[in-house]
Amino acid sequence: MSNSNTSASTAINRLSNMGLLNIEPSNTAARSSPFKVTVVGSGNWGTTTAKMVAENTALYPELFQRQVNMWVYEEKINGVNLTEIINTQHENVKYLPEIKLPENLVAVPDIADACKDSDILIFNIPHQFLPRICSQLKGKVNPKARALSCLKGLNVTPEGVFLLSDYIEKELGITCGALSGANLAPEVAREKYSETTIAYKLPKDYYEGDVNGAIWKTLFHRPYFHVRVSSDVQGVSLAGALKNVIALAAGFVEGKGWGDNAKAAIMRRGIIEMIKFSNMFFNESEGTTFTQESAGVADLITTCAGGRNVRVGAEMARSGRTAAEVEKELLNGQSAQGVVTTEEVHELLTNKGLINEFPLFEVTYQIAFNGYPIDDLPKFFEHME
Amino acid sequence: MSNSNTSASTAINRLSNMGLLNIEPSNTAARSSPFKVTVVGSGNWGTTTAKMVAENTALYPELFQRQVNMWVYEEKINGVNLTEIINTQHENVKYLPEIKLPENLVAVPDIADACKDSDILIFNIPHQFLPRICSQLKGKVNPKARALSCLKGLNVTPEGVFLLSDYIEKELGITCGALSGANLAPEVAREKYSETTIAYKLPKDYYEGDVNGAIWKTLFHRPYFHVRVSSDVQGVSLAGALKNVIALAAGFVEGKGWGDNAKAAIMRRGIIEMIKFSNMFFNESEGTTFTQESAGVADLITTCAGGRNVRVGAEMARSGRTAAEVEKELLNGQSAQGVVTTEEVHELLTNKGLINEFPLFEVTYQIAFNGYPIDDLPKFFEHME
Repeated sequence: MSNSNTSASTAINRLSNMGLLNIEPSNTAARSSPFKVTVVGSGNWGTTTAKMVAENTALYPELFQRQVNMWVYEEKINGVNLTEIINTQHENVKYLPEIKLPENLVAVPDIADACKDSDILIFNIPHQFLPRICSQLKGKVNPKARALSCLKGLNVTPEGVFLLSDYIEKELGITCGALSGANLAPEVAREKYSETTIAYKLPKDYYEGDVNGAIWKTLFHRPYFHVRVSSDVQGVSLAGALKNVIALAAGFVEGKGWGDNAKAAIMRRGIIEMIKFSNMFFNESEGTTFTQESAGVADLITTCAGGRNVRVGAEMARSGRTAAEVEKELLNGQSAQGVVTTEEVHELLTNKGLINEFPLFEVTYQIAFNGYPIDDLPKFFEHME
Repeated sequence: MSNSNTSASTAINRLSNMGLLNIEPSNTAARSSPFKVTVVGSGNWGTTTAKMVAENTALYPELFQRQVNMWVYEEKINGVNLTEIINTQHENVKYLPEIKLPENLVAVPDIADACKDSDILIFNIPHQFLPRICSQLKGKVNPKARALSCLKGLNVTPEGVFLLSDYIEKELGITCGALSGANLAPEVAREKYSETTIAYKLPKDYYEGDVNGAIWKTLFHRPYFHVRVSSDVQGVSLAGALKNVIALAAGFVEGKGWGDNAKAAIMRRGIIEMIKFSNMFFNESEGTTFTQESAGVADLITTCAGGRNVRVGAEMARSGRTAAEVEKELLNGQSAQGVVTTEEVHELLTNKGLINEFPLFEVTYQIAFNGYPIDDLPKFFEHME
C-alpha cells in the first residue's frame, strides 16, 4: 500500500475503471489491531456471506479478528432460539438448511451487541427493514467503522435515485460500499464457482491501515467466490435494481414463446438503457460496470434466466392477465421487485420528461400497468426510435 | 443523404460508433435503376435471409428489383429438382420446411446465372464452401456489386485472424460487409421478434446512389427483424467466431451442475476476452460491438443458452471424456465449431506469446485438448491473474 492515501485511492480508482483491479492479500498493510467484522442479517444470502467472511477471518488472523458476529432476528424453532441452534449446530436451519457454517461465526440476537466495536459492518437484510435497523444502530456503531451493503437495488422516487449505501452512510455516519453480482445464494452457499463485484470508494478520511479494496477482497474472496473490486458504487447499485425491470420484460417474450433471440434482444436493449439511465442520474458511474462486471451483465444474465420477475412476466404473457392478478396467484399478492421498479422508473422518467429515451423501460411499464399488448412490443421499439 | 460521400461516410461511422445509428428508408437516395439482389445459399439461414430480403424488395420497388435470386445447390427431392419445388410450391422443403416463401423469391441452380448483373450479393453458405463458391464466381460478378457475408466467424491461423468478408473482397474484387446477431434461424423464419447487426464500411469508391447503411437496413429490416447498422465489420465477425469458444466453456460449467452464477461468470469473462482479443488483432474494432450489439452480447447469450458447443462441453463435463470422444458420439464425428476455434485461438496466442492475457480461452483449450480438470477451472483463473 502506498504511504499516500491519495495515490492509493487514485491507483485503485484507475485500475478499477480499467476493469483490471486485482488486489492480492499481500498488498494489504499490516495493522496493529485486526478488524472486527459483523454481518447484519441472516437470511439465505446474509448467512451465505457470513459463512464466506468467517472462512476468511480464520485464514487471515493478522488482518481480522477470528470471530464474526452475525445479527439474527431471534425466533423460536421448535421451542429453541434460532441463535442457539446456529451457535451449537452451526447451521441456519431456517434460512440456509443443510449448509455447515464455520464455528467462528457467532449468531447474536441483539443488534447493538452484534455491532458493538466492530470495524466492518456488512448489511445483508431485506430492503424494507433498512430504516428500522439503522434507527436501532444510530449512535451505537464505531464512528470509524466502514460498511458494505449487500442489499439489492436502490430507492427510485419521482425526484431521483437514492442509493441504499448512501442511506446507511447518512443514518450511521459511516462510509458504505456495495456488493452485488451474479450470486444466487443457494449456489454460492454450496460453493459452486461464482463471481461478485465489490464497489467501494475510499473515504476522504482514509488512513493508513484503513479498510480499502484489498481488505474487502481479502474478506470476501474464496476459491469458489471470486471478487472484483470497483469504485462504482452507483453503477453497481443501479444495475441491481434495473435488472429486475429487464427480467420482467424478458418474461413477456418468454411467455409468448418467442424464443432465445427475442430474450437476448431484450437483454441487449436493457444493457443500453441501464447505461443511459446511469449516465443521466449518476455522472460518476462507469459504462463498463454494466457491460463487464459481475454486478452488471452477469447478474442480468442470471436474473433473466429465471426467478420471480421472469415468472411473473411470462405468466402475464401466457394468460393475458395483469401484473397484479399474476402476483396475487404466483406470489400470494406480494409484489415482484421488477413490477415495483418498473413503476418507480416510469414515474421518475415522466417527471423528468425522459420517457422517450427509454423504450424498453417504457414499454415494460405500458404492458405491466396499461394493458399495452405484448404482441406490439417490437412495433413499440420501432416507433420510439 | 449528403451530397458529399465523405461526410455521409463520416456521419454513418460516427453514429454507428455511438451505437445510435438508425436509418429510415426515407433517408435513402432515389436511384435511376433499382438494385438487383441475389442470395448465395439456401440452407435454413440462407433461405430465411432470402425470405426477408424478398419481402422487402416487394415493398420498396423504387430501391430494389422485385425479383430476388437465390442460388440453390441443386438436388433431387423424390425425383424432383429442389429449385423446381421452391419455385412452384414456394417452400424449401428440405432446409426450411413449413415456411411459406415469397413468390418473388426465385431459386436458381446455376451460381453464375444467379449472380449475373446483381448489384447486391448476400453470401449465406457454410464456411467451408466459400473458396469453391468464390472461384466459381471469379470474374463473373458485376464489378460494382456490393456484398454482405452472413457466414459466421472468420479464419484464425497461427499467423493472424482473417475475415471471410475480406476473403470475398479479395477473391471477387467487391466490397463486403457482415451480418451477424442473435439469430437462431428457425425463430427468425417463424417471424419471432429478433435483432441483428449489419456491419458495413463505405468503400473508397462510394458514389451517390451506392449501397450504404440505409440501403442495407431497408433491405433486411422487418417488423419482426430489427436491424442496427454498424461500421465494425471486424468486431462483428470476431464475435461470431469467439462466442463458440465461450459456449464450449459455458457447457463445461453447465455439465458440472455449477448453476447459473458460474455460467454467467464464464460469459462475463468471455466478453472481456473478446474485446481484448479484438483490440489486439484489429485496432479499428469497437468494444461496444461486443457489449451492446446483437452480434456481440446478444448472440453470446443465445449461443450459451444451448446449441452444439454447449452440448459438447456439458457432455465432456458429465462423462469425463475428451472433446473428440464426445463429438464422435453427439455429432457423428463432426467437429463442434467451438472446439475448432478454441484450438486455432490457442495456436495463434501461443505463436504471439499472448496466452497469459486470455485465461478463459486458455483454460478452455487446456480442458478440451490437454485433460486439465474442469474442477480446477476457478483455480486456473486465480493463477492466471
